[in-house]
Amino acid sequence: MGVRDILREWGVSEYKTIDKQALSEITLGASILATGGGGDPEIGLLWAYNVVDQGNEILLVDPEAMPDDALATIAGCLGAALVLTEKPPNGQELFWCYDRLRRYMGKPIQAVVPPEAGGVNTPVPMAVAGAVGVPVIDADGMGRAFPELQMTSFYVHGVSPSPTAAADEKGHVTICDSSDALLTERIIRNAAMAYGGISWIAGYPMTGRQLKDTGILRSISMAWELGRLVFAARKKHLDPIAEVIALTGGYQAFCGKIVDIDREFGAEKTKGFSLGRITMEGVDDFKDRKAIIGFQNEWLTIEIDGDVRCMPPDLICILDPATGEPIRTDIVRYGYRGSVVLIPAHERMRTERGIATFGPRYFGYRHDYVPVEQLMEA
Amino acid sequence: MGVRDILREWGVSEYKTIDKQALSEITLGASILATGGGGDPEIGLLWAYNVVDQGNEILLVDPEAMPDDALATIAGCLGAALVLTEKPPNGQELFWCYDRLRRYMGKPIQAVVPPEAGGVNTPVPMAVAGAVGVPVIDADGMGRAFPELQMTSFYVHGVSPSPTAAADEKGHVTICDSSDALLTERIIRNAAMAYGGISWIAGYPMTGRQLKDTGILRSISMAWELGRLVFAARKKHLDPIAEVIALTGGYQAFCGKIVDIDREFGAEKTKGFSLGRITMEGVDDFKDRKAIIGFQNEWLTIEIDGDVRCMPPDLICILDPATGEPIRTDIVRYGYRGSVVLIPAHERMRTERGIATFGPRYFGYRHDYVPVEQLMEA
Repeated sequence: MGVRDILREWGVSEYKTIDKQALSEITLGASILATGGGGDPEIGLLWAYNVVDQGNEILLVDPEAMPDDALATIAGCLGAALVLTEKPPNGQELFWCYDRLRRYMGKPIQAVVPPEAGGVNTPVPMAVAGAVGVPVIDADGMGRAFPELQMTSFYVHGVSPSPTAAADEKGHVTICDSSDALLTERIIRNAAMAYGGISWIAGYPMTGRQLKDTGILRSISMAWELGRLVFAARKKHLDPIAEVIALTGGYQAFCGKIVDIDREFGAEKTKGFSLGRITMEGVDDFKDRKAIIGFQNEWLTIEIDGDVRCMPPDLICILDPATGEPIRTDIVRYGYRGSVVLIPAHERMRTERGIATFGPRYFGYRHDYVPVEQLMEA
Repeated sequence: MGVRDILREWGVSEYKTIDKQALSEITLGASILATGGGGDPEIGLLWAYNVVDQGNEILLVDPEAMPDDALATIAGCLGAALVLTEKPPNGQELFWCYDRLRRYMGKPIQAVVPPEAGGVNTPVPMAVAGAVGVPVIDADGMGRAFPELQMTSFYVHGVSPSPTAAADEKGHVTICDSSDALLTERIIRNAAMAYGGISWIAGYPMTGRQLKDTGILRSISMAWELGRLVFAARKKHLDPIAEVIALTGGYQAFCGKIVDIDREFGAEKTKGFSLGRITMEGVDDFKDRKAIIGFQNEWLTIEIDGDVRCMPPDLICILDPATGEPIRTDIVRYGYRGSVVLIPAHERMRTERGIATFGPRYFGYRHDYVPVEQLMEA
């Protein structure tokens, strides 16, 4: 049964075909929204290109078109993005996950939904959907990237990540099935560390109804539009940052040069994350000002001249001022220039349970959550 | 399909019925062979009694009677025995493991084999077999106890521990399926730690042929005989240590009082093992002599007056001189008196791959393996 059979069964005639240009636009947009995390987009993009080159169709379907009782799962990678660059996938990992998860659950999986807006975790689920022959649903679980498995709008609104299957490039597979999402995160992350720092996962089985009720809907279309605008700005030598701000309702909070990186070396292996903080010195309009930005795979908090200006789950995007290309936590270097754009998180991420799950206190910061709109208008 | 249906299908008419007395005898014998590990036998014994009280039959079958193509798995617990005492099972864990493993493998499991001679891990597989309705095979994978999943004669002779399922009392289940036994051990142990220190496992799926070619055969009958002899010696006020030595071909290497315990506190939670070493001062024939015994869940090495006298996989049993009751690493206390009996390991444990898998160097000791017979005759 192929993707078109599924759409016929669902009675769906509207969809968008994701070709290679679309893939590059979606991936750029998702990488910007990935807030410094999400890994090297090139790896995901090449994987997806390869799937298209082999004659597979990648079809994007609106969440409303998915039947309430059809089953979707996420697909992507979990672990430290830095390791991903050194240990690229062989392309079979997610098939192994799908196959074992299907067998374990005893049910067919009819759709893939990206777990996050991420450099790898947006194109890769598309590649998997294309190769497996199921549609991609136009939604994700964060509208940004986050480091841990339970940090999704799916979980916050009642969907369990279990069962989740995690595989590596040698065919090792671990399945965790637990009512406790933090336990699942711990076991799956331990598996990623045992695999050498990264694992490929399929999980969060959910019905169409659950997806519609809990996901960040149409976020793939939004990333696509964002990517398209930034590519167009580059071509026309316009300011890509202005395009990002206009589309997302974000704030330009800072522009400067990275003058210090305080990285917890080895955290990729011992904790399964990239961890640390960077210091930026302002340039142009921000001259003589200083920003300190903490990260755990993603940029998480920013203090400008001692004042907190953004907390998770609101988005901190550090972008190359000339190209709009995102600067990632795994490859950030001394001397890079960046424009810092802050973007309010989706309302489904800002509920009480959302703030408990991925707000500042969860990450160990001693602040209660205040929305970026209030912090920037103060 | 019950246990008698399976025996009929196998064409087996000879078996031993394991009643409550047999359970207590087998468990005492296995606890002696458990070399200080294997956890509190009482927990396993009560579980098995309960299964018998509910009207289930526990039938012990000789390995030669098992068809070559029938499938068996181990069942038991993995983790730190100290935690087991504080966090007893609810009795459902291993059913969950069996159910999920069967579904994952898509094959029926027709027999249970104990993973080791252990305080818990010998009666518990019998309880599970009785409750599930399959026979117990008269064999195990060590002829003693060892801390890690891959430390079995099964593995040493080519059987993979994968897939192995691990559950806890809340119904959390993790399945690891990997060609790399050390990776499986690591992931399953991490799951045990995430569960709070202990997990219940079913795994090492093997055919009857594999079991016959790789197991320590008829070790359950041997433990049974050992338990029977020690109980009889207690009743008749005879020396139980002499009975153990006579049956096992062991050596009485020391008798003394425990005067120091150097325990790595918290290792149960952080490493998933009980770790440390004890010092004994000799009494009677061993007056003015000193023994130092290292442990990792099990007693692993002994130095008497500075000379190494036993190395893994050979057995170090510390037994109460009056009752023959084993002294365990998880509950050993200052002032206990113990007779130290050293027993040669089974030949299937002493191959080159065996010594690489659980010999002294694997455990971090700086000695090459020398059989206990040579060390004691030196």
